[in-house]
Amino acid sequence: MSQTLEQFQAYQTRLEQYDQAIALLYWDLQTAAPKDSIEAKLSAVGYFSTESFRLSTADEYGSLLKKLSAPEEYDQLSPAMQLTIRRNLRDFERFQRIPEAFYTEYVTEKARSEKAWEAAKEASDFSVFAPHLDKVISMTKEYVHYMEPDQDVYEFLVGLFEDGMDTETIDRIFAELKEGLLPLLAKIEAAPKPDLSALQQTFDPDAQKKVQELLLSYIGFSFDCGAVAESMHPFTTTLCPGDVRVTNHYYADNPISSMFSAIHEGGHAIFEQNVDKDFWHTAAAQINMMGLHESQSRFYENILGRNPHFWTPIYEKMSELLPEFKTIPFDTFVKAINDVHPSMIRTEADEVTYGLHIILRYEIEKAIFRDNVKTDDLPALWNQKMQELLGITPANDAEGILQDMHWSDGSFGYFPSYLLGSIYDGMYLEAIQKDLGDLDTILENGRILDITHWLKEKIHRFGSMYNSKEVIQRVCGKEISAQPLLRYFEEKYSKVYEF
Amino acid sequence: MSQTLEQFQAYQTRLEQYDQAIALLYWDLQTAAPKDSIEAKLSAVGYFSTESFRLSTADEYGSLLKKLSAPEEYDQLSPAMQLTIRRNLRDFERFQRIPEAFYTEYVTEKARSEKAWEAAKEASDFSVFAPHLDKVISMTKEYVHYMEPDQDVYEFLVGLFEDGMDTETIDRIFAELKEGLLPLLAKIEAAPKPDLSALQQTFDPDAQKKVQELLLSYIGFSFDCGAVAESMHPFTTTLCPGDVRVTNHYYADNPISSMFSAIHEGGHAIFEQNVDKDFWHTAAAQINMMGLHESQSRFYENILGRNPHFWTPIYEKMSELLPEFKTIPFDTFVKAINDVHPSMIRTEADEVTYGLHIILRYEIEKAIFRDNVKTDDLPALWNQKMQELLGITPANDAEGILQDMHWSDGSFGYFPSYLLGSIYDGMYLEAIQKDLGDLDTILENGRILDITHWLKEKIHRFGSMYNSKEVIQRVCGKEISAQPLLRYFEEKYSKVYEF
Repeated sequence: MSQTLEQFQAYQTRLEQYDQAIALLYWDLQTAAPKDSIEAKLSAVGYFSTESFRLSTADEYGSLLKKLSAPEEYDQLSPAMQLTIRRNLRDFERFQRIPEAFYTEYVTEKARSEKAWEAAKEASDFSVFAPHLDKVISMTKEYVHYMEPDQDVYEFLVGLFEDGMDTETIDRIFAELKEGLLPLLAKIEAAPKPDLSALQQTFDPDAQKKVQELLLSYIGFSFDCGAVAESMHPFTTTLCPGDVRVTNHYYADNPISSMFSAIHEGGHAIFEQNVDKDFWHTAAAQINMMGLHESQSRFYENILGRNPHFWTPIYEKMSELLPEFKTIPFDTFVKAINDVHPSMIRTEADEVTYGLHIILRYEIEKAIFRDNVKTDDLPALWNQKMQELLGITPANDAEGILQDMHWSDGSFGYFPSYLLGSIYDGMYLEAIQKDLGDLDTILENGRILDITHWLKEKIHRFGSMYNSKEVIQRVCGKEISAQPLLRYFEEKYSKVYEF
Repeated sequence: MSQTLEQFQAYQTRLEQYDQAIALLYWDLQTAAPKDSIEAKLSAVGYFSTESFRLSTADEYGSLLKKLSAPEEYDQLSPAMQLTIRRNLRDFERFQRIPEAFYTEYVTEKARSEKAWEAAKEASDFSVFAPHLDKVISMTKEYVHYMEPDQDVYEFLVGLFEDGMDTETIDRIFAELKEGLLPLLAKIEAAPKPDLSALQQTFDPDAQKKVQELLLSYIGFSFDCGAVAESMHPFTTTLCPGDVRVTNHYYADNPISSMFSAIHEGGHAIFEQNVDKDFWHTAAAQINMMGLHESQSRFYENILGRNPHFWTPIYEKMSELLPEFKTIPFDTFVKAINDVHPSMIRTEADEVTYGLHIILRYEIEKAIFRDNVKTDDLPALWNQKMQELLGITPANDAEGILQDMHWSDGSFGYFPSYLLGSIYDGMYLEAIQKDLGDLDTILENGRILDITHWLKEKIHRFGSMYNSKEVIQRVCGKEISAQPLLRYFEEKYSKVYEF
């Protein structure tokens, strides 16, 4: 190993220790920290974040990255280390181009804007948030201009959350999807509604926790390199090599919520857990593609978890842990987990209407960054698009444009990745059935770990070595298309709703 | 505020961030970390410990401490900041006197010795541990000689764990206690044994957790600045200002274990939680007196928790959470929590024989450091003293001299503090009854928070502003004596065992 590489790895190790401390502090803040300690913990997060930023923008670091980019060094590196050098040098150079004063002001304004969004949502009043949103939009444009002066801002933002993806592709596949989803939703809407009253019971949260454990183990989450805790909102986080955790939230009146959160976060976690150990301490293990990540969580949650056959092998075991399920007919449960209807809130939407929620946000983001629509006009645009896509109109801003936090902290370009994930899922499903046979049969036979194994071999173990487009090409041998997802929807819901 | 003080406080804040990260990593290792992450977490602990050590031994730090010790600065400081400067300068200067090579070797040898102790205990073979113990003893002597060349080694070690305490005082009060305990134990031994078979049931660990929550809240533990988790062995830790946590371990066949661990660790935690906020970020909030600390946990556990009247107001509530208790007569429960009999293992001993376990260790530590007894002769000495003090002889080294880890990592001088804690408790009890009236009545009336309030006002809020001798003098107005504890034992056990 070259001396430069050795120095670089020692430097990276220091950076990783700070990142580990920050991740653990955040985890603790979300899952355990008592209220009187929040200030001290945030102060520690601030300290370690500053140290980490200082280290990753230091001249010493840049000089190591540049030395390792020179062919005589670079060509000797493993592919994962090459990715690390490429990605980190790119980020280093981008940061070098941002004036420090601007960066500080941007970070501060985003924090202010988050607070304003909270207050606006609470008051259901967009005007409280508007001036901050306006400023975050213009500063985000400036931020991108500093980093990549020649790139279209929105194109850059989309690529930030989904490496290698572009708006031309998204335009094409979202249009395909929209064209298919609207008539499908009309058919579902016209069908008779299922009777789900058997689910109106109380379900012990402690028992729900045990069901979660059962589900996580069943789909292949490993407790040797993972753990579970409770938090306000479910999430997945990697604390350090060998430690990928999920959280959940348990509602006594809605066990389906925690069950599907368990499967969803479990999907994210299994992806991270399955990354090849050889990639630890390289950029390959830091999966920075949100669409690819979401494709794993959504595959487990929707394609597998909402398939009736997923439950056949474990429904009885689950009923032992949550005895209320003994009074819920299997068919009613299947109807409940596949209940499709237009609704206001994205995070509560079913898998079919979810896509329309995302298309709405994608179209508005393009309107913001490409058509320069005025911030004050956004609520009306939101409501108009809700009517067009879902046939409903929010009663107020809280259940309309203020529902998501993403725009308050400048995460423009993030939304499309949720739907990209589902679109990739349609394609994986085709490939899996070609390789392993009929999905229903696999699930019916309780062989779900065969699928986890397939995902591991084809996708998980590579981490972020390949971007999503490359993954799709490698795994499915074809271009990204929304048709497989639409076919899956058609086939499934024509059965569920008998049309 | 002087510029030097400002610099010092900024420096301290950095140190505190490292300490917080280390504490949180340890917490996580004990309570949640999956096995595959242990290496990465220990590596982070190592990194932050090294950084913290580097900062606290840096010339810059020493120079700030010295500047603030000069009268023109020192006289302007708050008493808590004066304590901080005194204590940290003392430690800084002690460390300055240790050759770096020796220190590294000492730390390494202690780690080796810990491993050897584990193996020896597993094999129940003292000879595996003996050479390491021998080396740790001689290196500990050397270590103390470097730091305080003029002090008696054992005197120094005792003071390290209980600031201001000395072996002359301990000799006196331990002798008093021994003189009283031996005849008391003989009387208890002669009395008929209680029938505790009603406790042979299975108790749901989840329900035990709920009982723990009840007990912690009942005695005054605050969940606003505290939290709870499960670990192999119960412990208390302060992660940062406003965050004092306790752990517990739940045995399905022994609910009394987790109940009394909850009360014991709760006592430690309440002490830390009640330290005046003005002392945060000073040495006053870092309570370095183990005897004083133990006096709080043992007061809650023994003086309060083993008093039958403690349970009267909550026995029914507890039986609702742990329904098995409905079949256990209150009187049987009281007998079970006050079951006194000689046993081999210190950590499982009752409050009466516990003292004899400590006296044994104290006498052996003096034999090691004052009489230079050969390491190879220690097991025989141990067994002989067990026979003298408790009338029983270990069947092997594992249940004899190898049972505690303290000597393996050089924590000589720690043991006496456990018993000092109980001796202080006897004195607090007298003072409380003088101030608040009869303890049984207070407990019977469910007014236990009056006692927590008294302890807070008299002891907790000062943290380590006063050493134990000063605390006893301030609170009880007299010299330390073992007589109050002996009177408490006599009075209580003559009732329990009817002699």
